[in-house]
Amino acid sequence: MQLDLKKIKAFAFDVDGVMTDGGVLSDLSGELYRVFDSKDGFAIRMATMAGYPVAAITGGRSMSVRNRFISCGMKAEDVYLGSRNKELDMHDFCARYGITPDELMYFGDDVPDIGVLKACGIGVCPSDAVEDVKSVADYVSPLPGGRGCIRDMFEKTMKAQGRWVFDVQLYTKKF
Amino acid sequence: MQLDLKKIKAFAFDVDGVMTDGGVLSDLSGELYRVFDSKDGFAIRMATMAGYPVAAITGGRSMSVRNRFISCGMKAEDVYLGSRNKELDMHDFCARYGITPDELMYFGDDVPDIGVLKACGIGVCPSDAVEDVKSVADYVSPLPGGRGCIRDMFEKTMKAQGRWVFDVQLYTKKF
Amino acid sequence: MQLDLKKIKAFAFDVDGVMTDGGVLSDLSGELYRVFDSKDGFAIRMATMAGYPVAAITGGRSMSVRNRFISCGMKAEDVYLGSRNKELDMHDFCARYGITPDELMYFGDDVPDIGVLKACGIGVCPSDAVEDVKSVADYVSPLPGGRGCIRDMFEKTMKAQGRWVFDVQLYTKKF
Amino acid sequence: MQLDLKKIKAFAFDVDGVMTDGGVLSDLSGELYRVFDSKDGFAIRMATMAGYPVAAITGGRSMSVRNRFISCGMKAEDVYLGSRNKELDMHDFCARYGITPDELMYFGDDVPDIGVLKACGIGVCPSDAVEDVKSVADYVSPLPGGRGCIRDMFEKTMKAQGRWVFDVQLYTKKF
Repeated sequence: MQLDLKKIKAFAFDVDGVMTDGGVLSDLSGELYRVFDSKDGFAIRMATMAGYPVAAITGGRSMSVRNRFISCGMKAEDVYLGSRNKELDMHDFCARYGITPDELMYFGDDVPDIGVLKACGIGVCPSDAVEDVKSVADYVSPLPGGRGCIRDMFEKTMKAQGRWVFDVQLYTKKF
Repeated sequence: MQLDLKKIKAFAFDVDGVMTDGGVLSDLSGELYRVFDSKDGFAIRMATMAGYPVAAITGGRSMSVRNRFISCGMKAEDVYLGSRNKELDMHDFCARYGITPDELMYFGDDVPDIGVLKACGIGVCPSDAVEDVKSVADYVSPLPGGRGCIRDMFEKTMKAQGRWVFDVQLYTKKF
Repeated sequence: MQLDLKKIKAFAFDVDGVMTDGGVLSDLSGELYRVFDSKDGFAIRMATMAGYPVAAITGGRSMSVRNRFISCGMKAEDVYLGSRNKELDMHDFCARYGITPDELMYFGDDVPDIGVLKACGIGVCPSDAVEDVKSVADYVSPLPGGRGCIRDMFEKTMKAQGRWVFDVQLYTKKF
Repeated sequence: MQLDLKKIKAFAFDVDGVMTDGGVLSDLSGELYRVFDSKDGFAIRMATMAGYPVAAITGGRSMSVRNRFISCGMKAEDVYLGSRNKELDMHDFCARYGITPDELMYFGDDVPDIGVLKACGIGVCPSDAVEDVKSVADYVSPLPGGRGCIRDMFEKTMKAQGRWVFDVQLYTKKF
């Protein structure tokens, strides 16, 4: 399928299985830690520096998740922790930035993501998403969760819009 | 082989090599930490929300294991830590819920699991179980430990029974 | 090649790249943490319960390594940390247990292991050992470090000697 | 292509995706932890013992990174943390050791590394570098980041110069 990457004005994603390989490290108290991908993190930084709104919408509640994304340039209010109804949170995010769901690219890998994947402009899932998600996604990435599926589509979208420009001077100034 | 998924009324599993890839991270004191799979965790949550008894039976003694499973909706008394004789613990679990071993699906990957795998209704092992376990399992998953073998069979079983229903309203209310 | 597994009376191994995939997690102070394999750990426990001397000989100095192996039934004095000359430590281990190097199976993956691999009875390396090590090993395991190469050869050796017997009563008593 | 390994007098590398597989473990505060490869660490130790200047140039700021490299024999001033312009830092490193960029082998995997990869004598990237980096590298390693691409080229370079000599006496004395 040909995706209309030029219509995208914002990005949002689930966390576990999308930004990670799905693994969660549990400490003694049950607090969970995750391994993120540095190339995904670089893509988020490039997107936020270029002015795109970027949101995370996750059922998890770890402050480590919020802090990770803030360090990639995202705003605290755009990290939806403890989400029980991802469609509601997606609409809140769109409303706050004045965009329509059709202008949003969303990444999800499991059943709670299906509603948003259907409602958004371009729904993307990693190669190791569950079957019920693959069947509704607009694009199944060749990359599994946590290994660059975010980077790949952020970069492709921004290149299609002429906004993927790594300029060391700009990078030095803004970062 | 055709598995009779409809007879299953409860689930139980070993932890290392089943819920994980077998890796244990050791801290300075020798305390062990594990990486769990979020899709497996989601399946346990769906099963406990639907009312299935779910047990973990492990030789390990980490509180992080107990806390992880409680956060997925399991009851503290259904997490058997420090198990030295898994068959005894399996029978205790069945007795407490008034089910027979034949109504139990059990997941194991190594020699201490063989007794329970033989005694239960459907014995499942991950693709990377040891050979002695593969030869007694009723079903060898195509997935390795820690990468969704739990999710796959929980979902297949609940779908066969018409009980794998993701309803965002129900999810919001119960979770 | 046909290996004479029956002559083996003791086991020893390097740690990084053998008991692990070579990965070391560094904390803020530079202290290193490792991920061990639970199936390898089970094999060590089976060997120590059956009375085999088992040693670790590593250049690393982490107490987490010593504590991990003690929890698998090894003796503190058999964990050689900070080893600078592995042959010396191997001879010390053999002398303390009254065995000859020819009765020892040793596992190593990198250049500092070459001397011991040559001197011992059966030198084993994981599939991802460096080339200089593969060329001197008596047996190159089909398994990479940290994914069961220890378990595989401990089990094969003990089975060849009729000493790989999982008995839940014995296990309950000794463990 | 035939690489002129004999001209190399120093090594430098990016960290995430080169010394690691790109994964970063985030704790509650957002501090990041990385998994390094012990065979890469051994190569750095061999290089620093042989007298080669070795630098790390990374956008990250974790003290764990600095401490890891110091424990491999690198000097604190050769670990450039928080680098915003890698070419500037590369020139500083070369100037301090009186070498030219053409005498430097540099390893990088992502867009901020492109300038240095072009400017140095031999630019190397791991097999899983981004496409824009692969197209400018002098050598694309068959190994991915964090799985020995550093070790492989350090060893090849030092062997080409007759300086990869593991001598247990020397090792014992210097390490």
